[in-house]
Amino acid sequence: MGLLNSGDEVIVFEPFFDQYIPNIELCGGKVVYVPINPPKELDQRNTKGEEWTIDFEQFENAITSKTKAVIINTPHNPIGKVFTREELTTLGNICVKHNVVIISDEVYEHLFFTDSFTRIATLSPEIGQLTLTVGSAGKSFAATGWRIGWVLSLNAELLSYAAKAHTRICFASPSPLQEACANSINDALKIDYFEKMRQEYVTKFKIFTSIFDKLGLPYTAPEGTYFVLVDFSKVKIPEDYPYPKEILDKGKDFRISHWLINELGVVAIPPTEFYIKEHEKAAENLLRFAVCKDDAYLEKAVERLGLLKDYL
Amino acid sequence: MGLLNSGDEVIVFEPFFDQYIPNIELCGGKVVYVPINPPKELDQRNTKGEEWTIDFEQFENAITSKTKAVIINTPHNPIGKVFTREELTTLGNICVKHNVVIISDEVYEHLFFTDSFTRIATLSPEIGQLTLTVGSAGKSFAATGWRIGWVLSLNAELLSYAAKAHTRICFASPSPLQEACANSINDALKIDYFEKMRQEYVTKFKIFTSIFDKLGLPYTAPEGTYFVLVDFSKVKIPEDYPYPKEILDKGKDFRISHWLINELGVVAIPPTEFYIKEHEKAAENLLRFAVCKDDAYLEKAVERLGLLKDYL
Repeated sequence: MGLLNSGDEVIVFEPFFDQYIPNIELCGGKVVYVPINPPKELDQRNTKGEEWTIDFEQFENAITSKTKAVIINTPHNPIGKVFTREELTTLGNICVKHNVVIISDEVYEHLFFTDSFTRIATLSPEIGQLTLTVGSAGKSFAATGWRIGWVLSLNAELLSYAAKAHTRICFASPSPLQEACANSINDALKIDYFEKMRQEYVTKFKIFTSIFDKLGLPYTAPEGTYFVLVDFSKVKIPEDYPYPKEILDKGKDFRISHWLINELGVVAIPPTEFYIKEHEKAAENLLRFAVCKDDAYLEKAVERLGLLKDYL
Repeated sequence: MGLLNSGDEVIVFEPFFDQYIPNIELCGGKVVYVPINPPKELDQRNTKGEEWTIDFEQFENAITSKTKAVIINTPHNPIGKVFTREELTTLGNICVKHNVVIISDEVYEHLFFTDSFTRIATLSPEIGQLTLTVGSAGKSFAATGWRIGWVLSLNAELLSYAAKAHTRICFASPSPLQEACANSINDALKIDYFEKMRQEYVTKFKIFTSIFDKLGLPYTAPEGTYFVLVDFSKVKIPEDYPYPKEILDKGKDFRISHWLINELGVVAIPPTEFYIKEHEKAAENLLRFAVCKDDAYLEKAVERLGLLKDYL
């Protein structure tokens, strides 16, 4: 928010984490959406993160003289995609060419299940100079209520804008929790905490996705984050169910979620929330599940989701 | 920030707590300043909070069709004034007449040394419907680094704007600290904590202001907050002192503060920071001291300030 003047444009890839939008618009900025195109057979078969693609020509064409920044999120919420070194290099070089600031939201930096995780800021000195990298103790230490995060950059001027906005809005982060997080980071490195957490999540995803394999509901293989996007096209939920009227004008995914909570006791987030109204169709058959729960809890969810077999 | 649209005006009384200004301007709002007029003989004799006055005709004239809100701070930082029931009634009725939202910053609500403390929201149902009251655990429990505060209102719609801005910017307050503060409020009421704190601050002010009485430096008697404004007109600081060049274009109070820190080891805040550039003259001979320290520490400060006798 310290970066933008009224009328400045920020490119956001869709689907997007919903908080980006008001943060841009609150200070008079304009959001320009560029899609992450879904795999063609999303409703037919399991897909991979790499099949969700950005058309970089379309991205470059979206840049105008008013474009101040682009927000990239890797690992990506809600897709679970980890952007490849090649994708990030292409993106970064376009930003260098047009002098566009890169806000790299890497809050799931420790939750990747690919061979490696690339930080865009490290790809070249020029890209580094344009990048603000965002991290979160909430995500790294499962302490989302603590409200501790950080912004890193090689570029002191860019950092100063973020610092100014933070000082003027929040003034400071909660000091006792800052200290706890600083100690946790040190301790985590000593006990190999992040690698262990990664392995735990591999197990969690294995437990949880097994039911979708069994039911034949296609999903995008989770490469990162603790989310998985599952296609519910094949699930026939009752049309005459007593859905609350607040959700009737929303995407079909809201009705599926509502029904799933009430009938099976399993909660998912409707992903049309990550799209603007005009593009909701792209996600209305999807649900986003989170696996940040105990294994036993996930097994219970798997058992309940098994009941879906009567609705296929 | 949830309340304003671009171009909306907010009336702020000057001197003002500096954070108000960027919070208004960040979302495109315009600040309209109305002075709290200082006592005429501020540099001659000790003054009282009631001698710092708002010209309510001037306030009413500052209201336009674009005025969305006014911010009032009581007990007042930096003056230490507690607004009287009469002043707040006059202000509140003008706001009702023109439908102006009252943002009442009462973060020092438990630090008043007058007979009583009036909350503007309680003065009439109509005023209550227009008021957002702001409180702070940071101030009430000397935990400013915890970042826990609250907004109260009888008007649910007004509150929803504050809640929306909070959700979209901070998302939540730190949850473990929220719980600690909730318990502290309950415990405080049981052990009469706030009254005891008030008495402790009466003692602290007595210790600290004694040196200004001795030196003959006039101050505004603290009615609330933990601040005291002292007039340093009589103190002759050296003009040829090696002041850093960053402060040379600022008010004289910056030079006095700098000198005081370096020569006596006592820190004060330069109050021109609470004024816009054009009105700095009003405060350039003042310093704001804070007494939120152990009594022994304050006595040490008093001892050091005693050295000022050589500069009168």
